[in-house]
Amino acid sequence: MTTLYDYFRSSAAYRVRIALNLKGLDYDQISVDLVAGEQRGTDHLLRQPQGLVPALVTDDGIPLTQSLAICEYLDECHPTPPLLPTDAAGRARVRALAQLVACEMHPLNNLRVLKYLVSELGASDDAKLRWYRHWIDEGFTALEAQLSWDAGSGDFCHGDTPGLADICLVPQVFNAERFECDLASYPRIQQIAANCRALPAFAQAAPAAQPDAR
Amino acid sequence: MTTLYDYFRSSAAYRVRIALNLKGLDYDQISVDLVAGEQRGTDHLLRQPQGLVPALVTDDGIPLTQSLAICEYLDECHPTPPLLPTDAAGRARVRALAQLVACEMHPLNNLRVLKYLVSELGASDDAKLRWYRHWIDEGFTALEAQLSWDAGSGDFCHGDTPGLADICLVPQVFNAERFECDLASYPRIQQIAANCRALPAFAQAAPAAQPDAR
Repeated sequence: MTTLYDYFRSSAAYRVRIALNLKGLDYDQISVDLVAGEQRGTDHLLRQPQGLVPALVTDDGIPLTQSLAICEYLDECHPTPPLLPTDAAGRARVRALAQLVACEMHPLNNLRVLKYLVSELGASDDAKLRWYRHWIDEGFTALEAQLSWDAGSGDFCHGDTPGLADICLVPQVFNAERFECDLASYPRIQQIAANCRALPAFAQAAPAAQPDAR
Repeated sequence: MTTLYDYFRSSAAYRVRIALNLKGLDYDQISVDLVAGEQRGTDHLLRQPQGLVPALVTDDGIPLTQSLAICEYLDECHPTPPLLPTDAAGRARVRALAQLVACEMHPLNNLRVLKYLVSELGASDDAKLRWYRHWIDEGFTALEAQLSWDAGSGDFCHGDTPGLADICLVPQVFNAERFECDLASYPRIQQIAANCRALPAFAQAAPAAQPDAR
Protein backbone atom coordinates (compact mmCIF):
# COMPACT_ATOMS: atom_id res chain seq x y z
CA MET A 1 0.00 0.00 0.00
CA THR A 2 1.17 3.52 -0.78
CA THR A 3 1.85 5.50 2.43
CA LEU A 4 1.65 9.27 2.72
CA TYR A 5 3.41 11.03 5.60
CA ASP A 6 0.95 13.78 5.96
CA TYR A 7 -0.30 16.70 8.01
CA PHE A 8 -3.79 18.01 7.44
CA ARG A 9 -2.79 21.65 7.20
CA SER A 10 0.44 21.24 5.19
CA SER A 11 -0.32 22.67 1.79
CA ALA A 12 2.43 20.63 0.15
CA ALA A 13 0.82 17.47 1.56
CA TYR A 14 -2.58 18.76 0.43
CA ARG A 15 -1.22 18.90 -3.15
CA VAL A 16 -0.17 15.26 -3.00
CA ARG A 17 -3.53 14.21 -1.56
CA ILE A 18 -5.29 15.87 -4.50
CA ALA A 19 -2.98 14.14 -7.00
CA LEU A 20 -3.52 10.73 -5.38
CA ASN A 21 -7.28 11.28 -5.42
CA LEU A 22 -7.33 12.46 -9.06
CA LYS A 23 -5.44 9.29 -9.97
CA GLY A 24 -7.88 7.18 -7.95
CA LEU A 25 -5.07 5.65 -5.87
CA ASP A 26 -5.61 4.22 -2.38
CA TYR A 27 -3.16 5.28 0.31
CA ASP A 28 -2.52 5.07 4.02
CA GLN A 29 -2.02 8.34 5.86
CA ILE A 30 0.42 8.69 8.73
CA SER A 31 0.07 12.02 10.45
CA VAL A 32 3.22 13.97 11.36
CA ASP A 33 2.23 16.89 13.59
CA LEU A 34 4.24 19.85 12.30
CA VAL A 35 3.09 22.19 15.06
CA ALA A 36 4.28 19.73 17.70
CA GLY A 37 7.59 19.33 15.80
CA GLU A 38 7.12 15.62 15.07
CA GLN A 39 8.87 16.07 11.70
CA ARG A 40 12.10 16.54 13.66
CA GLY A 41 11.46 13.64 16.02
CA THR A 42 13.40 10.38 15.97
CA ASP A 43 10.43 8.34 14.75
CA HIS A 44 9.98 10.42 11.65
CA LEU A 45 13.71 10.96 10.97
CA LEU A 46 14.30 7.21 10.99
CA ARG A 47 11.77 6.94 8.17
CA GLN A 48 12.60 10.22 6.46
CA PRO A 49 16.07 11.59 7.28
CA GLN A 50 15.32 15.04 5.91
CA GLY A 51 12.43 15.54 8.32
CA LEU A 52 10.09 16.64 5.54
CA VAL A 53 6.34 16.39 5.02
CA PRO A 54 4.95 15.24 2.68
CA ALA A 55 6.89 12.09 2.02
CA LEU A 56 5.40 9.24 0.04
CA VAL A 57 6.50 5.63 0.18
CA THR A 58 5.23 3.84 -2.91
CA ASP A 59 3.67 0.39 -2.79
CA ASP A 60 7.03 -1.02 -3.95
CA GLY A 61 8.89 0.79 -1.16
CA ILE A 62 10.41 3.78 -2.99
CA PRO A 63 10.65 6.83 -0.68
CA LEU A 64 9.79 10.10 -2.42
CA THR A 65 9.97 13.72 -1.26
CA GLN A 66 8.99 17.17 -2.56
CA SER A 67 5.34 17.51 -3.52
CA LEU A 68 5.83 18.47 -7.18
CA ALA A 69 8.34 15.66 -7.75
CA ILE A 70 5.86 13.24 -6.15
CA CYS A 71 3.03 14.48 -8.38
CA GLU A 72 5.17 14.09 -11.52
CA TYR A 73 6.13 10.57 -10.40
CA LEU A 74 2.47 9.65 -9.92
CA ASP A 75 1.72 11.10 -13.35
CA GLU A 76 4.47 9.08 -15.02
CA CYS A 77 3.54 5.79 -13.32
CA HIS A 78 -0.26 6.27 -13.48
CA PRO A 79 -0.81 8.30 -16.66
CA THR A 80 -4.63 8.40 -16.56
CA PRO A 81 -6.05 10.96 -16.04
CA PRO A 82 -3.03 13.11 -16.95
CA LEU A 83 -1.88 15.98 -14.73
CA LEU A 84 0.05 17.61 -17.60
CA PRO A 85 -0.88 18.34 -21.23
CA THR A 86 0.67 16.28 -24.02
CA ASP A 87 2.46 19.16 -25.81
CA ALA A 88 5.77 20.52 -24.54
CA ALA A 89 4.61 24.16 -24.55
CA GLY A 90 1.47 23.28 -22.59
CA ARG A 91 3.49 21.23 -20.13
CA ALA A 92 5.86 24.17 -19.65
CA ARG A 93 2.92 26.50 -19.06
CA VAL A 94 1.31 24.23 -16.44
CA ARG A 95 4.62 23.62 -14.68
CA ALA A 96 5.32 27.37 -14.64
CA LEU A 97 1.92 28.11 -13.08
CA ALA A 98 2.49 25.39 -10.49
CA GLN A 99 5.97 26.73 -9.74
CA LEU A 100 4.70 30.27 -9.43
CA VAL A 101 2.83 29.00 -6.36
CA ALA A 102 5.38 26.43 -5.18
CA CYS A 103 8.57 28.48 -5.69
CA GLU A 104 7.40 32.09 -5.29
CA MET A 105 4.54 32.05 -2.77
CA HIS A 106 4.32 29.04 -0.51
CA PRO A 107 7.98 28.99 0.69
CA LEU A 108 7.64 32.47 2.15
CA ASN A 109 4.55 31.73 4.19
CA ASN A 110 5.07 28.33 5.67
CA LEU A 111 5.18 27.64 9.38
CA ARG A 112 8.94 27.60 9.91
CA VAL A 113 9.33 30.99 8.20
CA LEU A 114 6.53 32.61 10.21
CA LYS A 115 8.11 31.22 13.38
CA TYR A 116 11.49 32.73 12.42
CA LEU A 117 9.93 36.15 11.80
CA VAL A 118 8.53 36.17 15.32
CA SER A 119 11.28 34.48 17.31
CA GLU A 120 14.38 35.86 15.55
CA LEU A 121 13.26 39.15 14.03
CA GLY A 122 10.77 40.07 16.75
CA ALA A 123 7.93 40.62 14.26
CA SER A 124 4.61 41.54 15.84
CA ASP A 125 1.42 39.62 14.99
CA ASP A 126 0.46 42.53 12.79
CA ALA A 127 3.81 42.56 10.95
CA LYS A 128 3.58 38.79 10.45
CA LEU A 129 0.12 39.14 8.94
CA ARG A 130 1.29 41.95 6.63
CA TRP A 131 4.20 39.75 5.49
CA TYR A 132 1.81 36.89 4.80
CA ARG A 133 -0.63 38.99 2.81
CA HIS A 134 2.14 40.79 0.91
CA TRP A 135 3.47 37.56 -0.64
CA ILE A 136 -0.04 36.31 -1.36
CA ASP A 137 -0.76 39.55 -3.22
CA GLU A 138 2.55 39.52 -5.11
CA GLY A 139 2.00 35.96 -6.29
CA PHE A 140 -1.72 36.08 -6.97
CA THR A 141 -1.37 39.33 -8.92
CA ALA A 142 1.10 37.61 -11.27
CA LEU A 143 -1.00 34.46 -11.42
CA GLU A 144 -4.27 36.29 -12.07
CA ALA A 145 -2.59 38.21 -14.91
CA GLN A 146 -1.24 35.05 -16.47
CA LEU A 147 -4.54 33.17 -16.16
CA SER A 148 -6.56 36.09 -17.57
CA TRP A 149 -4.26 37.08 -20.39
CA ASP A 150 -3.45 33.65 -21.79
CA ALA A 151 -5.93 31.76 -23.93
CA GLY A 152 -4.67 28.48 -22.44
CA SER A 153 -6.82 28.99 -19.33
CA GLY A 154 -10.32 27.52 -19.18
CA ASP A 155 -12.50 26.19 -16.39
CA PHE A 156 -9.22 25.17 -14.83
CA CYS A 157 -5.73 26.69 -14.99
CA HIS A 158 -5.06 24.96 -18.29
CA GLY A 159 -8.09 24.06 -20.38
CA ASP A 160 -11.11 22.31 -18.99
CA THR A 161 -9.58 19.50 -16.96
CA PRO A 162 -7.76 19.80 -13.63
CA GLY A 163 -4.00 19.34 -13.53
CA LEU A 164 -0.75 20.14 -11.76
CA ALA A 165 -1.33 23.91 -11.62
CA ASP A 166 -4.78 23.47 -10.01
CA ILE A 167 -3.23 21.04 -7.53
CA CYS A 168 -0.99 23.90 -6.34
CA LEU A 169 -3.57 26.67 -6.64
CA VAL A 170 -6.28 25.24 -4.37
CA PRO A 171 -4.11 24.75 -1.24
CA GLN A 172 -2.70 28.25 -1.74
CA VAL A 173 -6.23 29.70 -1.90
CA PHE A 174 -7.08 27.74 1.25
CA ASN A 175 -4.08 29.28 3.01
CA ALA A 176 -4.99 32.78 1.83
CA GLU A 177 -8.52 32.35 3.16
CA ARG A 178 -7.23 31.06 6.48
CA PHE A 179 -5.21 34.26 6.88
CA GLU A 180 -8.20 36.33 5.75
CA CYS A 181 -6.50 37.76 2.67
CA ASP A 182 -8.73 39.86 0.45
CA LEU A 183 -9.10 37.90 -2.80
CA ALA A 184 -11.54 40.29 -4.53
CA SER A 185 -8.89 41.32 -7.05
CA TYR A 186 -8.44 37.74 -8.24
CA PRO A 187 -11.77 36.67 -9.78
CA ARG A 188 -10.23 34.18 -12.19
CA ILE A 189 -8.31 32.48 -9.39
CA GLN A 190 -11.47 32.33 -7.27
CA GLN A 191 -13.52 30.85 -10.12
CA ILE A 192 -10.96 28.17 -10.92
CA ALA A 193 -10.61 27.29 -7.23
CA ALA A 194 -14.40 26.96 -6.95
CA ASN A 195 -14.48 24.70 -10.01
CA CYS A 196 -11.80 22.51 -8.46
CA ARG A 197 -13.43 22.32 -5.05
CA ALA A 198 -16.63 21.05 -6.64
CA LEU A 199 -14.75 17.88 -7.62
CA PRO A 200 -14.57 15.00 -5.08
CA ALA A 201 -10.80 14.57 -5.59
CA PHE A 202 -10.24 18.10 -4.31
CA ALA A 203 -12.98 18.08 -1.66
CA GLN A 204 -11.74 14.84 -0.13
CA ALA A 205 -8.19 16.22 0.05
CA ALA A 206 -9.20 19.34 1.98
CA PRO A 207 -7.61 19.83 5.42
CA ALA A 208 -10.93 19.62 7.27
CA ALA A 209 -11.64 16.22 5.69
CA GLN A 210 -8.42 14.60 6.98
CA PRO A 211 -8.31 12.14 9.91
CA ASP A 212 -5.83 14.34 11.81
CA ALA A 213 -7.86 17.55 11.37
CA ARG A 214 -8.61 19.43 14.55
CA MET B 1 17.03 32.62 -32.24
CA THR B 2 16.22 31.71 -28.65
CA THR B 3 16.21 34.78 -26.39
CA LEU B 4 16.91 34.72 -22.66
CA TYR B 5 15.77 37.64 -20.50
CA ASP B 6 18.57 37.45 -18.08
CA TYR B 7 20.42 39.09 -15.20
CA PHE B 8 23.94 37.97 -14.40
CA ARG B 9 23.36 37.54 -10.68
CA SER B 10 19.88 35.98 -10.81
CA SER B 11 20.36 32.41 -9.72
CA ALA B 12 17.18 31.28 -11.50
CA ALA B 13 18.57 32.77 -14.75
CA TYR B 14 21.93 31.12 -13.99
CA ARG B 15 20.13 27.74 -13.94
CA VAL B 16 18.68 28.33 -17.38
CA ARG B 17 22.05 29.43 -18.76
CA ILE B 18 23.60 26.17 -17.55
CA ALA B 19 20.79 24.13 -19.14
CA LEU B 20 21.11 25.95 -22.47
CA ASN B 21 24.88 25.41 -22.42
CA LEU B 22 24.59 21.72 -21.51
CA LYS B 23 22.24 21.30 -24.47
CA GLY B 24 24.63 23.19 -26.74
CA LEU B 25 21.95 25.72 -27.72
CA ASP B 26 22.76 29.23 -28.96
CA TYR B 27 20.84 32.10 -27.41
CA ASP B 28 20.67 35.86 -27.26
CA GLN B 29 20.81 37.45 -23.84
CA ILE B 30 18.82 40.56 -22.97
CA SER B 31 19.81 41.94 -19.60
CA VAL B 32 17.04 43.04 -17.20
CA ASP B 33 18.67 44.87 -14.29
CA LEU B 34 16.89 43.58 -11.18
CA VAL B 35 18.66 45.98 -8.83
CA ALA B 36 17.53 48.96 -10.92
CA GLY B 37 13.98 47.51 -11.02
CA GLU B 38 13.91 47.03 -14.80
CA GLN B 39 11.80 43.87 -14.35
CA ARG B 40 8.92 46.15 -13.33
CA GLY B 41 9.49 48.67 -16.12
CA THR B 42 7.18 49.11 -19.07
CA ASP B 43 9.68 47.73 -21.58
CA HIS B 44 9.98 44.43 -19.79
CA LEU B 45 6.30 44.16 -18.81
CA LEU B 46 5.25 44.57 -22.44
CA ARG B 47 7.33 41.51 -23.23
CA GLN B 48 6.72 39.63 -20.00
CA PRO B 49 3.58 40.74 -18.12
CA GLN B 50 4.58 39.00 -14.91
CA GLY B 51 7.78 40.99 -14.63
CA LEU B 52 9.87 37.89 -14.05
CA VAL B 53 13.45 36.95 -14.84
CA PRO B 54 14.39 34.56 -16.31
CA ALA B 55 12.01 34.42 -19.24
CA LEU B 56 12.87 32.52 -22.38
CA VAL B 57 11.37 33.11 -25.80
CA THR B 58 11.99 30.05 -27.95
CA ASP B 59 13.11 30.26 -31.56
CA ASP B 60 9.48 29.66 -32.58
CA GLY B 61 8.25 32.49 -30.36
CA ILE B 62 6.87 30.62 -27.34
CA PRO B 63 7.30 32.65 -24.12
CA LEU B 64 8.34 30.55 -21.12
CA THR B 65 8.75 31.41 -17.44
CA GLN B 66 9.97 29.71 -14.27
CA SER B 67 13.46 28.29 -14.47
CA LEU B 68 12.63 24.64 -13.72
CA ALA B 69 9.75 24.62 -16.20
CA ILE B 70 12.09 26.12 -18.81
CA CYS B 71 14.73 23.46 -18.11
CA GLU B 72 12.18 20.65 -18.44
CA TYR B 73 10.95 22.18 -21.72
CA LEU B 74 14.50 22.29 -23.07
CA ASP B 75 14.97 18.69 -21.96
CA GLU B 76 11.80 17.55 -23.73
CA CYS B 77 12.55 19.40 -26.97
CA HIS B 78 16.31 18.74 -27.01
CA PRO B 79 16.68 15.35 -25.31
CA THR B 80 20.45 14.97 -25.70
CA PRO B 81 22.24 15.10 -23.32
CA PRO B 82 19.41 14.38 -20.87
CA LEU B 83 18.91 16.46 -17.71
CA LEU B 84 16.84 13.73 -16.05
CA PRO B 85 17.36 9.95 -15.72
CA THR B 86 15.23 7.55 -17.74
CA ASP B 87 13.59 5.75 -14.78
CA ALA B 88 10.66 7.30 -12.92
CA ALA B 89 12.23 6.84 -9.47
CA GLY B 90 15.47 8.47 -10.62
CA ARG B 91 13.56 11.32 -12.20
CA ALA B 92 11.65 11.83 -8.95
CA ARG B 93 14.91 11.86 -7.00
CA VAL B 94 16.55 14.44 -9.26
CA ARG B 95 13.46 16.65 -9.31
CA ALA B 96 13.22 16.44 -5.50
CA LEU B 97 16.86 17.51 -5.11
CA ALA B 98 16.31 20.38 -7.54
CA GLN B 99 13.14 21.41 -5.71
CA LEU B 100 14.86 21.27 -2.34
CA VAL B 101 16.95 24.18 -3.64
CA ALA B 102 14.28 25.88 -5.77
CA CYS B 103 11.34 25.58 -3.34
CA GLU B 104 12.99 25.52 0.10
CA MET B 105 16.11 27.68 -0.13
CA HIS B 106 16.26 30.15 -3.00
CA PRO B 107 12.82 31.78 -2.50
CA LEU B 108 13.76 32.89 1.01
CA ASN B 109 16.98 34.59 0.03
CA ASN B 110 16.24 36.42 -3.17
CA LEU B 111 16.54 40.15 -3.59
CA ARG B 112 12.89 41.13 -3.09
CA VAL B 113 12.71 39.21 0.19
CA LEU B 114 15.92 40.72 1.56
CA LYS B 115 14.62 44.15 0.61
CA TYR B 116 11.34 43.50 2.48
CA LEU B 117 13.20 42.40 5.61
CA VAL B 118 15.07 45.70 5.70
CA SER B 119 12.40 48.14 4.52
CA GLU B 120 9.29 46.67 6.16
CA LEU B 121 10.61 44.75 9.16
CA GLY B 122 13.52 47.07 9.94
CA ALA B 123 16.04 44.22 9.93
CA SER B 124 19.64 45.29 10.51
CA ASP B 125 22.42 44.21 8.13
CA ASP B 126 23.44 41.69 10.73
CA ALA B 127 19.91 40.28 11.08
CA LYS B 128 19.60 40.07 7.30
CA LEU B 129 22.85 38.12 7.08
CA ARG B 130 21.76 35.75 9.85
CA TRP B 131 18.47 35.15 7.99
CA TYR B 132 20.38 34.40 4.79
CA ARG B 133 22.76 31.98 6.42
CA HIS B 134 20.01 30.29 8.43
CA TRP B 135 18.12 29.18 5.31
CA ILE B 136 21.33 28.15 3.55
CA ASP B 137 22.18 25.95 6.55
CA GLU B 138 18.67 24.48 6.81
CA GLY B 139 18.62 23.56 3.14
CA PHE B 140 22.21 22.42 2.71
CA THR B 141 22.01 20.26 5.86
CA ALA B 142 19.07 18.38 4.31
CA LEU B 143 20.72 18.24 0.89
CA GLU B 144 24.08 17.05 2.24
CA ALA B 145 22.28 14.28 4.16
CA GLN B 146 20.36 13.17 1.11
CA LEU B 147 23.43 13.25 -1.16
CA SER B 148 25.57 11.34 1.35
CA TRP B 149 23.07 8.74 2.44
CA ASP B 150 21.66 7.75 -0.95
CA ALA B 151 23.61 5.50 -3.30
CA GLY B 152 22.17 7.42 -6.25
CA SER B 153 24.74 10.21 -5.82
CA GLY B 154 28.02 10.04 -7.73
CA ASP B 155 30.38 12.64 -9.13
CA PHE B 156 27.22 14.69 -9.60
CA CYS B 157 23.96 14.82 -7.64
CA HIS B 158 22.66 11.79 -9.50
CA GLY B 159 25.24 9.42 -10.94
CA ASP B 160 28.20 10.59 -12.98
CA THR B 161 26.61 13.02 -15.41
CA PRO B 162 25.31 16.51 -14.63
CA GLY B 163 21.56 17.10 -14.58
CA LEU B 164 18.70 19.18 -13.25
CA ALA B 165 19.74 18.92 -9.59
CA ASP B 166 23.28 20.12 -10.36
CA ILE B 167 21.80 22.99 -12.38
CA CYS B 168 20.10 24.18 -9.18
CA LEU B 169 22.93 23.33 -6.80
CA VAL B 170 25.71 25.37 -8.41
CA PRO B 171 23.93 28.76 -8.40
CA GLN B 172 22.91 28.15 -4.79
CA VAL B 173 26.53 27.45 -3.82
CA PHE B 174 27.55 30.62 -5.66
CA ASN B 175 25.01 32.59 -3.60
CA ALA B 176 26.17 31.02 -0.36
CA GLU B 177 29.77 31.93 -1.14
CA ARG B 178 28.80 35.48 -2.02
CA PHE B 179 27.23 35.85 1.43
CA GLU B 180 30.29 34.19 2.99
CA CYS B 181 28.38 31.24 4.42
CA ASP B 182 30.54 28.59 6.06
CA LEU B 183 30.24 25.49 3.85
CA ALA B 184 32.71 23.30 5.77
CA SER B 185 29.89 21.02 6.96
CA TYR B 186 28.87 20.22 3.39
CA PRO B 187 31.80 18.37 1.79
CA ARG B 188 29.66 16.39 -0.64
CA ILE B 189 27.93 19.54 -1.88
CA GLN B 190 31.31 21.27 -2.29
CA GLN B 191 32.78 18.32 -4.20
CA ILE B 192 29.82 18.08 -6.58
CA ALA B 193 29.86 21.85 -7.15
CA ALA B 194 33.59 21.69 -7.96
CA ASN B 195 33.00 18.84 -10.43
CA CYS B 196 30.28 20.90 -12.12
CA ARG B 197 32.31 24.09 -12.28
CA ALA B 198 35.10 22.24 -14.07
CA LEU B 199 32.73 21.78 -17.03
CA PRO B 200 32.54 24.54 -19.67
CA ALA B 201 28.71 24.54 -19.64
CA PHE B 202 28.76 25.58 -15.98
CA ALA B 203 31.81 27.86 -16.17
CA GLN B 204 30.38 29.81 -19.12
CA ALA B 205 27.08 30.30 -17.26
CA ALA B 206 28.71 31.82 -14.16
CA PRO B 207 27.66 35.36 -13.25
CA ALA B 208 31.14 36.83 -13.76
CA ALA B 209 31.22 35.46 -17.33
CA GLN B 210 28.02 37.27 -18.41
CA PRO B 211 27.99 40.39 -20.63
CA ASP B 212 26.06 42.38 -17.99
CA ALA B 213 28.40 41.42 -15.10
CA ARG B 214 29.79 44.31 -13.10
